[in-house]
Amino acid sequence: MALPALQPVDAGPRDAAIADLKAAFGDRCTTSLAVREQHGKDESWHQPAPPDAVVFARSTEEVATAVRICAAHKVPVVPFGTGTSLEGHVAALRGGVCIDVSQMNRVVRVSVEDLDCTVEAGVTRKALNEHLRDTGLFFPIDPGADASLGGMAATRASGTNAVRYGTMRENVLSLTVVLPDGRIVKTARRSRKSAAGYDLTRLFVGSEGTLGVITEVTLRLYGIPAAISSATCSFPSVKAAVDTVIQTIQSGIPVARMELADELQMKAFNLYAKLGVAEAPTLWLEFHGTDASVAEQAEMVQAIAAEHGGADFKWTTSPEERKRLWQARHDAAYAGKALRPGAQLWATDVCVPISRLADCIVETQVDVQASFLPAPIVGHVGDGNFHLTIILDPKEPREVEEANRLNDRLVARALSMDGTCTGEHGVGYGKIDFLNAEHGGDVLSVMRAVKKAIDPDGIMNPGKILRM
Amino acid sequence: MALPALQPVDAGPRDAAIADLKAAFGDRCTTSLAVREQHGKDESWHQPAPPDAVVFARSTEEVATAVRICAAHKVPVVPFGTGTSLEGHVAALRGGVCIDVSQMNRVVRVSVEDLDCTVEAGVTRKALNEHLRDTGLFFPIDPGADASLGGMAATRASGTNAVRYGTMRENVLSLTVVLPDGRIVKTARRSRKSAAGYDLTRLFVGSEGTLGVITEVTLRLYGIPAAISSATCSFPSVKAAVDTVIQTIQSGIPVARMELADELQMKAFNLYAKLGVAEAPTLWLEFHGTDASVAEQAEMVQAIAAEHGGADFKWTTSPEERKRLWQARHDAAYAGKALRPGAQLWATDVCVPISRLADCIVETQVDVQASFLPAPIVGHVGDGNFHLTIILDPKEPREVEEANRLNDRLVARALSMDGTCTGEHGVGYGKIDFLNAEHGGDVLSVMRAVKKAIDPDGIMNPGKILRM
Repeated sequence: MALPALQPVDAGPRDAAIADLKAAFGDRCTTSLAVREQHGKDESWHQPAPPDAVVFARSTEEVATAVRICAAHKVPVVPFGTGTSLEGHVAALRGGVCIDVSQMNRVVRVSVEDLDCTVEAGVTRKALNEHLRDTGLFFPIDPGADASLGGMAATRASGTNAVRYGTMRENVLSLTVVLPDGRIVKTARRSRKSAAGYDLTRLFVGSEGTLGVITEVTLRLYGIPAAISSATCSFPSVKAAVDTVIQTIQSGIPVARMELADELQMKAFNLYAKLGVAEAPTLWLEFHGTDASVAEQAEMVQAIAAEHGGADFKWTTSPEERKRLWQARHDAAYAGKALRPGAQLWATDVCVPISRLADCIVETQVDVQASFLPAPIVGHVGDGNFHLTIILDPKEPREVEEANRLNDRLVARALSMDGTCTGEHGVGYGKIDFLNAEHGGDVLSVMRAVKKAIDPDGIMNPGKILRM
Repeated sequence: MALPALQPVDAGPRDAAIADLKAAFGDRCTTSLAVREQHGKDESWHQPAPPDAVVFARSTEEVATAVRICAAHKVPVVPFGTGTSLEGHVAALRGGVCIDVSQMNRVVRVSVEDLDCTVEAGVTRKALNEHLRDTGLFFPIDPGADASLGGMAATRASGTNAVRYGTMRENVLSLTVVLPDGRIVKTARRSRKSAAGYDLTRLFVGSEGTLGVITEVTLRLYGIPAAISSATCSFPSVKAAVDTVIQTIQSGIPVARMELADELQMKAFNLYAKLGVAEAPTLWLEFHGTDASVAEQAEMVQAIAAEHGGADFKWTTSPEERKRLWQARHDAAYAGKALRPGAQLWATDVCVPISRLADCIVETQVDVQASFLPAPIVGHVGDGNFHLTIILDPKEPREVEEANRLNDRLVARALSMDGTCTGEHGVGYGKIDFLNAEHGGDVLSVMRAVKKAIDPDGIMNPGKILRM
């Protein structure tokens, strides 16, 4: 998407803030063009926008110092974790100061008894799971990218395990946040439940840096299951695959992962890795439990799949075999590129009630088939969430226009089915124009009132989520 | 607790609002003392405060009409479901208008495929489960009382099933809310996940009527498990019971319910129902799954309990036997009264990280043993949440003082263990003085800013959650 026309911050306050930041942070405040450009860009195709300076913070207190300086000069602040967002979240649309928290990478505490931990915002999910290796615990949320946990909280990320373990919404117990005026708050105590006032934790989860900078995250953890089984199965149609998913969930089978790829995505896997798989809608499943229960779960789903014409059902508990079965799914993004070497990917996502998922995917496929751009589909179908990966050359205006048309129609389709314009990628500036259609003006007025109440000067990540 | 000294609404605007309401609602706006008194009182021991009028609304639009009239005159609004709250939530501290939604009792829609439903706010949880009887689905959240689902959302209720199914926080997909100016908003679409802007659903869940009136609730449902097994086991100490709980959760056993009663509560059960049970700390457990998996789960927990000195482990899948095993737990409140016939119950709750639960309960027991008031303990221990039920004669100032002392010390103890002053009952006005100790002034200032942004005239349930 092209950059929105926002007023850049004035040079006077900008330069004054940068001078103060350099005095406070020395070399860890930089205006180097290369660093700025790297920080204004995420993994999306949306046009980047570099900040005027980047501060590398090493503690909550340092983030507070940086925010206080920016607040004093009313200079925009853009938080940055790993830059793996997908809707232009880190683009500094008015310039200003990017606060990079990637050096805040300490695991502060782990409690095996409480099945929880506290991490600094820059710890990535893989680093956390590496740290947990000997505890018997793991953190299940897996959005694909090795994102920072602060960023995952900020975008309300989820991914393949959400059908069983929930999203960041369900798995954040508490946040430490630097408010737009530089005060440091902790949104909740560490107990599993609380009914003590407004749920500020959930207000900051998904706020995309527009209400404050998340600096620490307290997360739920889970015992590594005694046994894991994985399965794959191909289907005569998307509807047959989705009906299998619906019946599996209705049956109360506590499936941990349930992923779908469409025909085009399967073709991409074959092109990419010479897999020789059937180019038919395919489900990947994973079951967590005891030896007996994962076998039982796999067998129950196999029976359900058979009723819906599922073919070539394979399941295994062997770690090597499981890895092999899932490899194609993990390679989805790379495989997409094999459909059109040299092109770029535009990954968009929607989420609908699962009863409408087959319709939504099939209608989207019809739209894609009528387009000159390839766009395979993969999805976290247990949640009704799927991704359309539009493969385009962003230098070709005609292709960009067509990609926008496909995306607009995808979102309109999801909204017409009581779904959302984004299940897990967030709004950034890429989806900002869809929020009115999704929520209506009265809901947006409440969101704007909340934004103004917490960030009256509008310095926090301006131009994201809401047009103010 | 005694009533806070809040300024009653002025007679002029009050009478003008009531006249307008009578014009709009006829007989369904009443100023009868009996009706007003019934609506100013919940199930707690806190002092009641009747509203000046009660309006019985039959639709979201009628609630909006009533709120618009109150807003025009800046007259307080107190929403009312079943009046089963426990911290004085429905007391009309400044007078004003109570909006009773109990006649809004339609189940609007049920989707078996999506495992969700939409209900009007006055539908109770038992009425919903009765409605769902033939669908194979159920709604698991069970706070004990047959509360309205609007009220359960408003107080972020939970109860015995939360360890497996979560609380209202996790199970509300969307809310229809009448804002303080009478506008009607829907907080979210019906998809399982969304990353499309601020999580207004979670902001209104637990807001206790202070941000608007919840008029419809869209809820997650679950397939009724193919098999259910229940178990009970007594332990040599609270610590042994809690350690069994911790190890069960760490092992990833997907236990559905895990309830604890202490020695005094077990004595009460014997007094109440001549059960002849051991007067030792006792766990009740319930497992949901297939025949094979509930048997496996029960056996695994039996082995864990045995390691911790658990005795007399009984488990069954027979519905009659299950009912018998759980009867004592369900009768906890009545049984408490058997310890002191004629006295009243003050049920307070806290929640702590589970690693601190045994300490918190044992220290509370020591405090209770040193008191002249009996106060048994039952708890949703899988969540670290427990209830102290103080049994007192509220007409005796000395007893009230002692009960307050026990409650204050309980909350201070929970907070010192990184817990919360209320896991599930909410704040109302009974716990309003603990919020500063729990959250600190900066967090409360954010909550107040949100409150002012959404309810600038402060008409929604004044004197609850926050002192403004």
